[in-house]
Amino acid sequence: MGLTTAAASILPGGLELVFPSQARAQAQDPLPSWNDGAAKQFILSFVRATTDSSSAKFVPPEQRIATFDQDGTLWVEHPMYTQVVYCLERVPVVVKAKPELANVEPFQTVMSGNREAIAKLSMNDLLKILAATLTGMGVDDFEAEVKQWLSTARDPRWKRPYTDLTYLPMIELLKYMRTNGYKTYIVTGGGQDFVRVYAEQVYGIPPEQVVGTASGTSYGYDKNGRPFLTKEPKLLLNDNNAGKPEGIHLMIGRRPYAAFGNSTGDRQMLEYTKAGDGERLTMLVLHDDAKREYAYGPAQGLPDTTVGTFTQALYDEAKSKGWNVISMKNDWKQIFAWEK
Amino acid sequence: MGLTTAAASILPGGLELVFPSQARAQAQDPLPSWNDGAAKQFILSFVRATTDSSSAKFVPPEQRIATFDQDGTLWVEHPMYTQVVYCLERVPVVVKAKPELANVEPFQTVMSGNREAIAKLSMNDLLKILAATLTGMGVDDFEAEVKQWLSTARDPRWKRPYTDLTYLPMIELLKYMRTNGYKTYIVTGGGQDFVRVYAEQVYGIPPEQVVGTASGTSYGYDKNGRPFLTKEPKLLLNDNNAGKPEGIHLMIGRRPYAAFGNSTGDRQMLEYTKAGDGERLTMLVLHDDAKREYAYGPAQGLPDTTVGTFTQALYDEAKSKGWNVISMKNDWKQIFAWEK
Repeated sequence: MGLTTAAASILPGGLELVFPSQARAQAQDPLPSWNDGAAKQFILSFVRATTDSSSAKFVPPEQRIATFDQDGTLWVEHPMYTQVVYCLERVPVVVKAKPELANVEPFQTVMSGNREAIAKLSMNDLLKILAATLTGMGVDDFEAEVKQWLSTARDPRWKRPYTDLTYLPMIELLKYMRTNGYKTYIVTGGGQDFVRVYAEQVYGIPPEQVVGTASGTSYGYDKNGRPFLTKEPKLLLNDNNAGKPEGIHLMIGRRPYAAFGNSTGDRQMLEYTKAGDGERLTMLVLHDDAKREYAYGPAQGLPDTTVGTFTQALYDEAKSKGWNVISMKNDWKQIFAWEK
Repeated sequence: MGLTTAAASILPGGLELVFPSQARAQAQDPLPSWNDGAAKQFILSFVRATTDSSSAKFVPPEQRIATFDQDGTLWVEHPMYTQVVYCLERVPVVVKAKPELANVEPFQTVMSGNREAIAKLSMNDLLKILAATLTGMGVDDFEAEVKQWLSTARDPRWKRPYTDLTYLPMIELLKYMRTNGYKTYIVTGGGQDFVRVYAEQVYGIPPEQVVGTASGTSYGYDKNGRPFLTKEPKLLLNDNNAGKPEGIHLMIGRRPYAAFGNSTGDRQMLEYTKAGDGERLTMLVLHDDAKREYAYGPAQGLPDTTVGTFTQALYDEAKSKGWNVISMKNDWKQIFAWEK
C-alpha cells in the first residue's frame, strides 16, 4: 500500500484509485495543522451538518456567514497589537510634518524612544497618538503608508513581517469555511481601514468583508479638483464588546452562523451568534503555549494581561454555553506556516 | 429561417445551430427591454472592455464593484418615496402604543388623514415621524413589520405592491452586471434596514450589499436573557450627496467601477466613481416619460420636483463629464415586468 501521490499521478488517467493511502488521506484533510481532537471535530461536524441539504441543520448558502476576530484569533497580538506598533512608529513622521508636537506629550515621550516610559502611557495618551496617526490624511495616502510600513516592519521576537504571524490552522479554517460556501468576515476591534490594507492578500478576505472600528471620512477636492476622502477623527463604530454585534448588523445585516474570537472583547459576538436558531459554531482561541507563541489569560491560571484578556469568567461561560475553547498548545499541530 | 427556439430544442442534441434566427438573437440579448441606442451601447461596451482579459481596460474580478441608487433608479419614487409612505402609514400603530402622541404634532395631523395638511408637513415634522416609526424597536421586529406592510400596501396609481414597481431594464442590467462578475450594491439615501428587508428577493442583492442611511443599534437582552439589537435614533451615515462616497468607503472600501443614479443626491457618487483610474461607467436615469411613469426634472424643461430632483446643472455636468443620461422614454422599451 505504499502508493504515493506522485506514483498515482502517472497511472493511466480516469482510474478512480480505491486504496486510501496515507498520502491521499492527508491530502484530503482540510485542516492538516489541527490535531485530532474535540475542537477539530466540532468544526468538521458543524460544516458537514450545515452544508448537507438532507440535514435538519442545513443552512442555505446565502445565509452562511462566519465572523473572525483578528488580533489573537487570526494573528499574533502580543506583546502589543500590531496597529498600535504602527501608530507608535508613525509618530516621527507626524512630528516631522508638525514640529510643534515635538515638545508636547505624549509625542515627546514616544520620540524619546524610552520604552519603559512608552509602555506606561495612559489610554488617553494612546488615543491622542491613534488620532494623530490614523486620521487627517486621505484614505489612499493612508493605505499607501500602511502598505509601506508592513513591507519593512519586523516583529520583536521572530524578526519577521507582521503579516507572517498569522496562525496556519486559522488560515486553513478560513479556506475550509469558504470552500463550503461560507462568506468569511473579519470583525475586529482594530481599525477597519488598517486591516483592509492586507486582509485580501493575507487572509483572502476582501475589503468589503472587513468590519472594524471605523471613523468617518469627509468628501472633498484636491487642488486639481479631483475628489478624495479624508479620514476624520469622528468615531462611527467602536467594534469591540457589544460593538461587535452592532457592527455586524451595520455592515453585514445578518446574524453569523459561526463566530471565532479569543478575548472578552468577543464575548457578545459569540453570544449573539449562538442565540440564533439552528446550529451555530462559536469558538475561542486560548493562548496557552508560551513556548511556540504566548501564554496569557488570566483564565486557567495563565498569566494576566491587558492585551487580549481571556478571563476565567469568560472561560466558565464558554464551557457552560457550549462555546468551544481551542487550546493552541493541544489543538494546533503547527502555529505558523514558516515553521518546519 | 423560421426556425423557432422550440423547434431547435427537439433537434438531435449536440448540434451547434448556425442560423441566427430572430428568436435566438433575442434570447442572447442580455438587455431585451432596452432600445438599441447610445445608453445600451455604453453599457455593453463597458462590460465587454472591462471583462476581456486581453483589453487594456480589463478589471480583475475582485475589483468589479457596481453601485446603484434605489429610489428613482431601480424603482418608482413618485409621488413620494415608498419608505416615507411606510412611515406615515405606521403612525396609527405608533399612536396606539403611545396614546399620548395622538394630540401632539405632527402625529395629530397624520392621524387626521387630511392629505393636504400631511403634504405640507415640514422636514422637521417628517424627521419626527421617521424617528418614531424607524427606531425604538428590535431589528427583527422592524424587519417583520416592513415585510408585513409590503405584503399588503398598494401604490396609489397602479394599485400594485410597491415591490412590483421596479424597472425591468434595471433588473436586467443588475443581472447582466452580475453575470459578468460585477458585485452589485445598492447605495441609497433610504434606510439601510428598510431596503435590506426586500432587496434580496426583489433585486437579487443580499443584505450585506445594501448601503443606506443608517442609524446605530444598541445591544441588550430581553426578559428571557436572549440578546437582541434595538434600533436607536442615532444617525451614523446620511447616505446622500457626499454621504454616498463616504458610505461606499465605510461599507465597501473600494471605489466602484460603475455607478447609477437619477438625482442630485447621486452627483458625488458618480463624480467619485468617474475619478478612478481606467474605464468607469456612470449613468443617470432621466424621468421623462409622464405617460408610462412620471416626468420630472427640472432638467430639460421637465416639471420641477422635490422628490428625486434632477437639475439642469446636473444634466449639463453629466453631458460635459461623460456621465451618460438614460432617457426612460427613448431608451426603455418596457418599464415594468407586468406590462404587456
